[in-house]
Amino acid sequence: MKWRRMIMILNILLFDDFETLDVFGPVEVFGNLPTYYEPRYLSMDGGKIKSRHGVQVQTESIEVFSPDGILFIPGGYGIRPLVKDPKYVDAVRDLCEKSLFCLTVCTGSALLAKTGLLKGLQATSNKLSFDWLVSVDPAVLWLKKARWAVHGKYWTSSGVSAGIDMALAFVENINGRDEAERVAKFMEYIWNEDIDNDPFSSI
Amino acid sequence: MKWRRMIMILNILLFDDFETLDVFGPVEVFGNLPTYYEPRYLSMDGGKIKSRHGVQVQTESIEVFSPDGILFIPGGYGIRPLVKDPKYVDAVRDLCEKSLFCLTVCTGSALLAKTGLLKGLQATSNKLSFDWLVSVDPAVLWLKKARWAVHGKYWTSSGVSAGIDMALAFVENINGRDEAERVAKFMEYIWNEDIDNDPFSSI
Repeated sequence: MKWRRMIMILNILLFDDFETLDVFGPVEVFGNLPTYYEPRYLSMDGGKIKSRHGVQVQTESIEVFSPDGILFIPGGYGIRPLVKDPKYVDAVRDLCEKSLFCLTVCTGSALLAKTGLLKGLQATSNKLSFDWLVSVDPAVLWLKKARWAVHGKYWTSSGVSAGIDMALAFVENINGRDEAERVAKFMEYIWNEDIDNDPFSSI
Repeated sequence: MKWRRMIMILNILLFDDFETLDVFGPVEVFGNLPTYYEPRYLSMDGGKIKSRHGVQVQTESIEVFSPDGILFIPGGYGIRPLVKDPKYVDAVRDLCEKSLFCLTVCTGSALLAKTGLLKGLQATSNKLSFDWLVSVDPAVLWLKKARWAVHGKYWTSSGVSAGIDMALAFVENINGRDEAERVAKFMEYIWNEDIDNDPFSSI
């Protein structure tokens, strides 16, 4: 497949009050495969974006968004006002539709759900915010027990650290088992590679 | 103890080409305990610092370093030229001596070792760079098999992800088991809490 050998752009959509590790766990995975992926740090208006833990990250405006790559949406408390902002949600829907893959971590799946694109599809999210997630769109097939979920081009992970496991699974799927194992070893990361091993589910 | 109830400043020393997750794994742990810790992003000269994966982080100059807190040193390829820079090493020694605790992740322990402060103390680091570490200061009691190591005020972790396990162990030690468990659960992080469980050791 053509994109196996092309560098795929990882369009990371940042917003104030994003959850720090939601972003930088997967960045460590994808960033260590520079022959396959190039992370780019974007926000709707560009400029500095501050995580919930005070990290100020320089971003480019969404105008440099690269279609036919990956749209990556983290979660965090900052997602909540965005889910209520129809203009922001419309823009995210447009970005999703132009992307080969959409990956979300934690409550990032709420924003994706709000676009309507997840209706009838399996998805998951942070277990501590699960009821809120379901209320955003009950037509999504929300999984209460899943480290991550895949349905078509949509990959959604459980809370925070689960994003690392999903990123490694994505790499395994696209680039092969060896590459995923190599990165996990470089990161000295004890990979939870079982999609059904979700110790934080309440069921 | 007095500092149990005070906010401890986490002075994070950033430099170009730092390893992204070395920093933002522990930041996720400490940043989720705002009643105990306040992360600050510093560099010797202030300004923007770029991680190995292209994340541009705004930093303050080391002039705002807060003594009697934690000095946190990540690793990454960017550490190698710094270990050879006597002026930089002297400055780091001074910062260490003014700190209640010094925490390093991955090859961050090479910089700490170069100050001479680790001589005769147990420490660890990334397993893929181990021979280089030993060459920086053979008088350090380098542990080949340890997820992290503690000796006095010095906490050193193995590669990248091991920093998260060390940060949780630090929180357990300072703030108690309940706080460490609460943060790990919030992060949906499968905590490797056994200091001797180091699957990436070659022994």
